[in-house]
Amino acid sequence: MKRRLLLVSNSTLHGSGYLDHCQQNISSFFGKDVKKVLFVPYALHDRDAYTKTARDKFKSLGGGNTFRLLKSLYDNKVVTEIRRRVMEDGVPYMGSSAGTNVATVSINTTNDMPIVYPPSFSAIGLVPFNINPHFLDADPNSRHMGETREQRITQYHEESDTPSVLGLREGSMLLVEGNKATLLGTTKARLFTRGKPTVEYEPGSDLSFLLTDTN
Amino acid sequence: MKRRLLLVSNSTLHGSGYLDHCQQNISSFFGKDVKKVLFVPYALHDRDAYTKTARDKFKSLGGGNTFRLLKSLYDNKVVTEIRRRVMEDGVPYMGSSAGTNVATVSINTTNDMPIVYPPSFSAIGLVPFNINPHFLDADPNSRHMGETREQRITQYHEESDTPSVLGLREGSMLLVEGNKATLLGTTKARLFTRGKPTVEYEPGSDLSFLLTDTN
Repeated sequence: MKRRLLLVSNSTLHGSGYLDHCQQNISSFFGKDVKKVLFVPYALHDRDAYTKTARDKFKSLGGGNTFRLLKSLYDNKVVTEIRRRVMEDGVPYMGSSAGTNVATVSINTTNDMPIVYPPSFSAIGLVPFNINPHFLDADPNSRHMGETREQRITQYHEESDTPSVLGLREGSMLLVEGNKATLLGTTKARLFTRGKPTVEYEPGSDLSFLLTDTN
Repeated sequence: MKRRLLLVSNSTLHGSGYLDHCQQNISSFFGKDVKKVLFVPYALHDRDAYTKTARDKFKSLGGGNTFRLLKSLYDNKVVTEIRRRVMEDGVPYMGSSAGTNVATVSINTTNDMPIVYPPSFSAIGLVPFNINPHFLDADPNSRHMGETREQRITQYHEESDTPSVLGLREGSMLLVEGNKATLLGTTKARLFTRGKPTVEYEPGSDLSFLLTDTN
């Protein structure tokens, strides 16, 4: 298993610039020998502008709308190819927000608005669980009556055969190297597993157990 | 055109009980001659409990998860029949939150998590536009970096041929009687139309222009 993944919760952290909060992780993840990065601009509408921005500033890498990104991956028939290149050839994969969602089992736990209809919610499947990026704790002072993030994930787990969901708060990311997974960043992550109590993990935690298929 | 619809943004308003904020509207909408209401419990997992609660207290009527609701409507092959009964026979339709989303053109502008995959995002189509229930203004003090509601709807309108989206804030609802639409409740609504500036409407506004197919 050669996979190497860096799955970031969010591109921008409040009070800092684009990808500032994970710049060091990105540098060490790709290493100094990497000369080219394939950027997939499908998640935003204006792909040329998005690519230019990413090239110029490494900005918002992988962010945007998850439904649009996944639909374009299917429309361009690259889902299987990306999976093969990452899992078998060891091509490093980095995603943030939408790019993190599509790396997992499915996009069932995205926060995005379903603005387009992809042929499936199944995603690239580089890991055997789901992620909820931009994970947000309930605000006890809120007067808004929409469901909390935790309630939404609980609704997901009412469906049968649903995998674990790792809630990555803004500022956190998951590094996967083969069969080893480590939580990086500055914030904790919250793990939701169907039929079990939720668990909080500190930055630095070894989450390799999530990579076995039994979750 | 016999349709009569009451499309509510939310079932519960902060500080009051279930459907308290629209109880009077519901009473006058159904009228004293209505003896039976067909309740569609598809949006929550435990349908028996949900139905019992709704029967007991008229609680959360039509709320829940929009994807689950729409998928069950398709699985049970009732989308076309509901449309026919409402549009041709004048059976009154009331929805709140998820029940409001599925009454429109599509569920493309729901806020819910895509926990199940419906065969289409097209919905019952009782009105020729979309609604965003629980519409939320951007919080200038938020440190969370997820897209604002307005940004999400703007992303939807980057796609071609997308209808207008009426952002119904919590506390507001839309009453449709044939070809007349009126904004009711205590909060304003915000209308998003592709390629045009957004417009705010006060409670009491006549929104009948939204019922023409050219939006």
